[in-house]
Amino acid sequence: MNHHASTTSHHASLDLKAFLEAQRQRVDAALERFLPASDSLEKTVVEAARYSLFAGGKRLRPILCLTAAEVVGGTADEALTAACALEMVHTYSLIHDDLPAMDDDDLRRGRPTNHKVYGEAVAILAGDLLLTEAFGLLADPRIGSNAAVAAERRLRALTILARASGMQGMIAGQVIDLESETREVDLATVEYMHIHKTGALISASLEMGAVLGGGNDQQIQALVQYGRHLGLAFQITDDLLDIEGDPDVMGKPSGSDVAKNKKTYPALLGLARSREMARKHVDRAVDALKTFDEKAEPLRAIARYLLERKA
Amino acid sequence: MNHHASTTSHHASLDLKAFLEAQRQRVDAALERFLPASDSLEKTVVEAARYSLFAGGKRLRPILCLTAAEVVGGTADEALTAACALEMVHTYSLIHDDLPAMDDDDLRRGRPTNHKVYGEAVAILAGDLLLTEAFGLLADPRIGSNAAVAAERRLRALTILARASGMQGMIAGQVIDLESETREVDLATVEYMHIHKTGALISASLEMGAVLGGGNDQQIQALVQYGRHLGLAFQITDDLLDIEGDPDVMGKPSGSDVAKNKKTYPALLGLARSREMARKHVDRAVDALKTFDEKAEPLRAIARYLLERKA
Repeated sequence: MNHHASTTSHHASLDLKAFLEAQRQRVDAALERFLPASDSLEKTVVEAARYSLFAGGKRLRPILCLTAAEVVGGTADEALTAACALEMVHTYSLIHDDLPAMDDDDLRRGRPTNHKVYGEAVAILAGDLLLTEAFGLLADPRIGSNAAVAAERRLRALTILARASGMQGMIAGQVIDLESETREVDLATVEYMHIHKTGALISASLEMGAVLGGGNDQQIQALVQYGRHLGLAFQITDDLLDIEGDPDVMGKPSGSDVAKNKKTYPALLGLARSREMARKHVDRAVDALKTFDEKAEPLRAIARYLLERKA
Repeated sequence: MNHHASTTSHHASLDLKAFLEAQRQRVDAALERFLPASDSLEKTVVEAARYSLFAGGKRLRPILCLTAAEVVGGTADEALTAACALEMVHTYSLIHDDLPAMDDDDLRRGRPTNHKVYGEAVAILAGDLLLTEAFGLLADPRIGSNAAVAAERRLRALTILARASGMQGMIAGQVIDLESETREVDLATVEYMHIHKTGALISASLEMGAVLGGGNDQQIQALVQYGRHLGLAFQITDDLLDIEGDPDVMGKPSGSDVAKNKKTYPALLGLARSREMARKHVDRAVDALKTFDEKAEPLRAIARYLLERKA
């Protein structure tokens, strides 16, 4: 195995675990404020949305977004509604993906999936709610620090979010994923699928943060590059975990991708070449950050951490 | 029956049918431009979205939006992306409402519903696509005349759209509608349900148009008032049509609300009082427009037309 300097973990002074935990708490507090429990007639669907939104997610996308804003010289506060919007869009996609008509999953993060608890109708609506409110959160001048951020920047962030989650992004990836379960696909198609299904939103997290934080074009492009490689490394290590991971740590049974005939990297490339490819993307992700100072250290550490992840 | 002047139809010089047809064509052409057919890997979901988007809808919401922009002294062009976004949100809501887990409808406008043609998974994603792209359409400065409209106005329009279609709007109405099928509800709940499920988006159509056209607060509020009464009149006449309408003209069997135990106005109030209530809301809708000149004539004519509608 090629122990390239950028992929060893002992040269970072940053305590990644403590950083992620502090950021996660910050995002959770903001989400709680932006989507509080409801006692209205329609409270069931709000409860269902909150059930999945507060299911112990790692808040990776929000953390990438907040950090990107700081990396380009802005403040995390300028990107806080965007960070929460990203988590809401991510959560909506999980709820709809788990539906019986889609992946038909009963468990997510060790708990029953949304439709198992609330039924299909409410689960569909809870996903719709999260998607809709994500855009409302980012657009509404009365919320958070929105009014302090230039309207043009917010519109640009909204556009990035819509493109990453729409027909040229996440939805494209999901359709191809569904179709690939019943036919043979090659590596290029699998890569195209992942770039759209998960990569687009991860990349958008960094781009939105950079735009809202006032980054220049060069800074924004560097963070987008980082995001693209991080997204692919994330997907490959996810596929590897499905085969090699500990079901207790992951909260779901291992081998579920294989059982569903999902076209994974290990299935197409084998374990060794998949690990090598994950490492290559981590290296490139870190490399994209070379013009940034120590504020980008969390992003470097997150990329390297993917090679050691257990869940 | 009280033949109030504002509800007779012979004092309008406007040819409503020709006006609606010209506006419909304008909206259809814009929708075709904003959501063209795709030959990408993910073309299936785009095709599914277009199947429902171009299913012969009347384009009521877009027409209200474009007209509102003109009524306050702006141009229809300033509201064109908003008008199309409204139709996309409306169409998404129909696709998801028709799903087996929701209303389980096989026919819509005389054609098989989306999931009957494309399957449930693609239908869910086609709805998600339309909802997501609606926000992208309104936010993206590279589309239509967006760049010519002040960013603050566009953010305000986006906020109105998100609120009207989100948990305090359409989704709230849909949840209450679902729940009311299995329990007794009173008139106040039915009204609350309709105000959210259909009224919010109709009202938003007018408010968005007024905002994008540069209306002042008083003008915007007058159009919102018109929209509220129009929305209720629309719902009541819709309920009446389900009982009294001609199935061939409507493209769906009559009596379907009764069969599903839907709580309609006629079911709660009887036919006579429902007709009277529709007329009252039409009067109030027209009354809300009293400070506007002849540019508001199409809005007056649309309201009056509801009392004569056949489909």
